[in-house]
Amino acid sequence: MSEPFSAKLANAVAQNDSLLCVGLDPDPALMPIANVADFNKAIIEATSDLVCCYKPNIAFYEALGAEGMEALTTTLRNIPDYIPVILDAKRGDIGNTSAAYARAVFDELGADAMTVNPWGGKDAVEPFLDYSDKGIIVWCRSSNPSAGDFQDQIVEYEGEKRPLWQVVALKSMEWNVHGNIGIVMGATYPEQLKQARQLCPTAPILIPGVGAQDGSLRDSVLAGVTSAGDGAIISASRGVLYASRASDYPLAARAAATSLRYQINQSRPKPVVIRPGEE
Amino acid sequence: MSEPFSAKLANAVAQNDSLLCVGLDPDPALMPIANVADFNKAIIEATSDLVCCYKPNIAFYEALGAEGMEALTTTLRNIPDYIPVILDAKRGDIGNTSAAYARAVFDELGADAMTVNPWGGKDAVEPFLDYSDKGIIVWCRSSNPSAGDFQDQIVEYEGEKRPLWQVVALKSMEWNVHGNIGIVMGATYPEQLKQARQLCPTAPILIPGVGAQDGSLRDSVLAGVTSAGDGAIISASRGVLYASRASDYPLAARAAATSLRYQINQSRPKPVVIRPGEE
Repeated sequence: MSEPFSAKLANAVAQNDSLLCVGLDPDPALMPIANVADFNKAIIEATSDLVCCYKPNIAFYEALGAEGMEALTTTLRNIPDYIPVILDAKRGDIGNTSAAYARAVFDELGADAMTVNPWGGKDAVEPFLDYSDKGIIVWCRSSNPSAGDFQDQIVEYEGEKRPLWQVVALKSMEWNVHGNIGIVMGATYPEQLKQARQLCPTAPILIPGVGAQDGSLRDSVLAGVTSAGDGAIISASRGVLYASRASDYPLAARAAATSLRYQINQSRPKPVVIRPGEE
Repeated sequence: MSEPFSAKLANAVAQNDSLLCVGLDPDPALMPIANVADFNKAIIEATSDLVCCYKPNIAFYEALGAEGMEALTTTLRNIPDYIPVILDAKRGDIGNTSAAYARAVFDELGADAMTVNPWGGKDAVEPFLDYSDKGIIVWCRSSNPSAGDFQDQIVEYEGEKRPLWQVVALKSMEWNVHGNIGIVMGATYPEQLKQARQLCPTAPILIPGVGAQDGSLRDSVLAGVTSAGDGAIISASRGVLYASRASDYPLAARAAATSLRYQINQSRPKPVVIRPGEE
């Protein structure tokens, strides 16, 4: 029995004093070396004391066929045990098919958490939730240009008009009987992130789409954290992986991750320390 | 360059006089033999003159790990060349990730078509559509109990109130610049299927969820076909694969597929033949 995702995440956040997640999305067109597992291993060794989790996106491994999936398995083995892995897979289908996807990601690959797609509704998400020690991170709102096509459609929910992504967030909280649900919210719109944090006061929020040059990083962190100053998982991929495209890439990745972790920590609300005489 | 999905499908429909699709969803708990590739091979040999396509759902192979994915590759090789394959994968993510999924399904696995999830909007679907010879089948409305959680939310679109799944269907038709889009509509609600056919007069509609004992089969066929009496892809999985759970399973699968094909063809509107003197 492995440690629950929530406990593992809290431990890694504390141990590495970090809310940074590095997305392991190998792209042969950008990688300075050809071997995916070796590339990832160097990135992991260069950053494992700076992150709260890793997030491989399975699409990039599937695109490389059987070899790619072998590189994913090797990569998962190379991640230190105390650091949780969120497999970004955006899976979702009707019940018995979602159950098969859950077996694939949790039983076969051994991930600690995964992203899921809510389009099929509650019974399409439940087979994932039944893995009560695993983290199930529901895709609410992304920040790609067309995300609003469906996610922002205005619907009426319990007497109030809301964009659909908010209904997904609210329903996810209803479904959260095991306390293992988080949500995915793109980093681009801090206002939406703030609303999501209000709707889901304590759930982990996975925030992809930040980069080292992203001016909104501070706003995203402030909007995404809980009142305790954590609960946000700030994910960067290309800005770390491809910080250098030469042989110094592990050092460059470490420098980029160090800078992101520092900027994130600077943006986190500080614990309030009351000194004597200051009331 | 392989034949476009649409041409391949039309050819198989004509050659086998069939709108039946068999879903190749191997479940070790139900299979009478242990080897997935051998099981599928026997099913394919028993049914390949009765179907217009096969639809493996990748979740069932992923759930079996690397061996499962190898069985999928073998299965795809064992399907006769003239019969198209729809890989049921329900993929969808932001642009560069969808592009990686498209490479995985089309370039690596060589499927003729795949199902995609529309939640990310247009730019999340476009990387699939760019494979203009491949069929891209957008998940509009399923028939699982909770499908309505999000798919049936009422939204306003171009001045009319509609359930969201209809907006997905309408937008899919807008995106259909290569003429390679189809839609997924569950079989349970023929009324919705009829509406989908009105919104998408000529697109292929993949209709999963029919079974040998399903009384609504006739209604689904009538609602799903185009005015030319085709364009519906009626998919059955468990009712064919597990028609017998003993060693006679290929014969039982053939009997089930024969019966479904016959019932479907009986329900298709007949070409109108005008005899002399009958006006």
